Amino acid sequence: MKKGIKAITKGSILSPKGFSADGVHAGMRYAKKDVGVIVSDTPASCAAVYTTNLFQAAPLKVTMESIEQAGLVQAVIVNSACANACTGERGLADAYKMRELTARKFNIKENHVAVASTGVIGEYLPMDKIEKGIAGLSPGAAESNAESFQTAILTTDLVMKKSCFSAVIDGKTVVMGGAAKGSGMIHPNMATMLAFVTTDANIASDHLSAALKEVTNRTFNQITVDGDTSTNDMVLVMANGKAGNEALSPEHRDWPLFVELLAESCESLAKQIAKDGEGATKLIEVNVTGAADNYDGNMIAKQIVGSNLVKTAVYGADANWGRIICAIGQSSASLNPAAVDISIGPIKMLSKSEPQPFSEQEATEYLNNDFIQIFVDIHSGAGAGKAWGCDLTYDYIKINASYRT
Amino acid sequence: MKKGIKAITKGSILSPKGFSADGVHAGMRYAKKDVGVIVSDTPASCAAVYTTNLFQAAPLKVTMESIEQAGLVQAVIVNSACANACTGERGLADAYKMRELTARKFNIKENHVAVASTGVIGEYLPMDKIEKGIAGLSPGAAESNAESFQTAILTTDLVMKKSCFSAVIDGKTVVMGGAAKGSGMIHPNMATMLAFVTTDANIASDHLSAALKEVTNRTFNQITVDGDTSTNDMVLVMANGKAGNEALSPEHRDWPLFVELLAESCESLAKQIAKDGEGATKLIEVNVTGAADNYDGNMIAKQIVGSNLVKTAVYGADANWGRIICAIGQSSASLNPAAVDISIGPIKMLSKSEPQPFSEQEATEYLNNDFIQIFVDIHSGAGAGKAWGCDLTYDYIKINASYRT
Repeated sequence: MKKGIKAITKGSILSPKGFSADGVHAGMRYAKKDVGVIVSDTPASCAAVYTTNLFQAAPLKVTMESIEQAGLVQAVIVNSACANACTGERGLADAYKMRELTARKFNIKENHVAVASTGVIGEYLPMDKIEKGIAGLSPGAAESNAESFQTAILTTDLVMKKSCFSAVIDGKTVVMGGAAKGSGMIHPNMATMLAFVTTDANIASDHLSAALKEVTNRTFNQITVDGDTSTNDMVLVMANGKAGNEALSPEHRDWPLFVELLAESCESLAKQIAKDGEGATKLIEVNVTGAADNYDGNMIAKQIVGSNLVKTAVYGADANWGRIICAIGQSSASLNPAAVDISIGPIKMLSKSEPQPFSEQEATEYLNNDFIQIFVDIHSGAGAGKAWGCDLTYDYIKINASYRT
Repeated sequence: MKKGIKAITKGSILSPKGFSADGVHAGMRYAKKDVGVIVSDTPASCAAVYTTNLFQAAPLKVTMESIEQAGLVQAVIVNSACANACTGERGLADAYKMRELTARKFNIKENHVAVASTGVIGEYLPMDKIEKGIAGLSPGAAESNAESFQTAILTTDLVMKKSCFSAVIDGKTVVMGGAAKGSGMIHPNMATMLAFVTTDANIASDHLSAALKEVTNRTFNQITVDGDTSTNDMVLVMANGKAGNEALSPEHRDWPLFVELLAESCESLAKQIAKDGEGATKLIEVNVTGAADNYDGNMIAKQIVGSNLVKTAVYGADANWGRIICAIGQSSASLNPAAVDISIGPIKMLSKSEPQPFSEQEATEYLNNDFIQIFVDIHSGAGAGKAWGCDLTYDYIKINASYRT
């Protein structure tokens, strides 16, 4: 963790001042909660990044429109079970209706509402259930309220994803909480799955947006579960200013600290998503050093962590470094094929591209852990990169061979 | 099949005049044959395409050197079980030694020998076994000799891949045979796995090379099993001229027919490789029309057939067209997101990007076939593309969680 940033172990999206939340079972899923909301006491500066998939879902269009108006959001309404993607004009009307119902319910402006959906693509939202769900929301600031929200946004996720960190800015304690869902169709590009970050920092939305874009590239965009980029990916940050710090901007002396606070939050959520990838039993972290630049380092790291063959080898605890070098060789990075080092955990397997003797037993023991680190040194420059993913298992097949049924 | 091209059902790499082959068990694999050779009676015009993976294996370097000398090859020696990739100086010396042993055995020039290897990356060739294997080769022109070769080049493949077609060129019957191996680490880029094509056509190696490059882009480069591009991919064509046709060149009136003969051979082998992908139970063919150009059409087709989520849905006979449109949206093709049609087999599911009602039962019945066709119309131009792949199953995980052990 970077200097000046503190983890708040039991914290959540409700730890920053001035936020409340809730989640209810509206009946779209069999038993689990499926509609959730985060509300700020006052309109908050807002920034978001969205999927680059050409078929952006309807709720993303509505959220963009809301944020573009004045960079302010006071509530974000989310449903699971149905992605409201590829649903044409009717889907767009449904997303507007979700926004309208939420604005009326909380007595706020329509363009202060963001909308997000996740679930099956190509099905229409059951609007009667959505309406009932929104009507039943009763936001509060207790830990149980945060949990209700965190549960309502999940699909095939097995665990809730949350984060909470703080930093002292201008002598004021700024708190930042996060909640996310992930699981499948995870291969973010410029933006990602659903993740919501709340903070009481004082910062205008344009600066918040700049920080978010920079941070997303090295956190959410560096995870992959299955190589497929969803139509619904969205990361949304709300900053309501209640910490009372002097407004942040790139000129502020604590700007780098704030950016790292955001990065710490996003990296924490991103790793939780990777670890809970569909069917996953292990979190894989790839560390690349010696790349020509950070862009190359990140690209190589993501290529390795995205390889089905690397993922199945990690699942089988097989120290098959040949698949790692094969993945490196597919990237368009500039490198010298004769100068690559590879280690799996503490065990060096390739040095200057020559195979090294190692104990298979020791390697298997390491690979039986549930957190696997792979280290690659390209010896081509000062660039570095990191990426996170998970193993590919029988359960991934099981989950995805019958997702809709 | 294109007009003028005839399939020879029982044909093989030995159907063209003047070729012999063999395969033996040299002891690198437990019981299966693991060293094979194809020999032409006289030096044959040769063309090859190779993997674009940065870590090209040693045998590819040796083969390139042989072909560059004069464009002629009289024998190609192949082993399975060990890829001789990422094996440094020693691996290169071993590949040269394989070439030398083969040249001596068949009393031909060293630079008339091509070398290919397939199997585990990062292990050294057991040269004593390779030497014994080459010494034991006894090429003949019987069908059993072709089978011995076809078996010797396989790794986790379940079935032999072969092709045979003919066309009349200059009033002479030109025959073309093929043999290939595939299975895992299949995501060719510019070149592909191991495939060997023999023909008695008369054609200089530069023209043969031009035809092979063009054809590879729309056949081998359009298949994927798992998204990983191997270090050892190679397609090699030998043309010994014994059909007696006037030498082929782009100016020859039968040039288009010859190119299609080669395309038919490569497409046949490519589809056999896709169908026998590791763990596969179904062959998937994606047909894209209405793309801005053929490049876009091929890119979209390959993106769809490469999606883990599409592959698992096909395995589970789940008509989840949302995953198909998600894959389309990830490609960098230019298209109008509001004008896409999708059919799975005969069943239309999306029209102008609006979901269509369809019978789930009928869709499941279709998806229980072992050959699945997906049709996509982008309505953006006259470009088209095709790609082939396979479903992603429990057996893929089983095979790859313990490949080395």
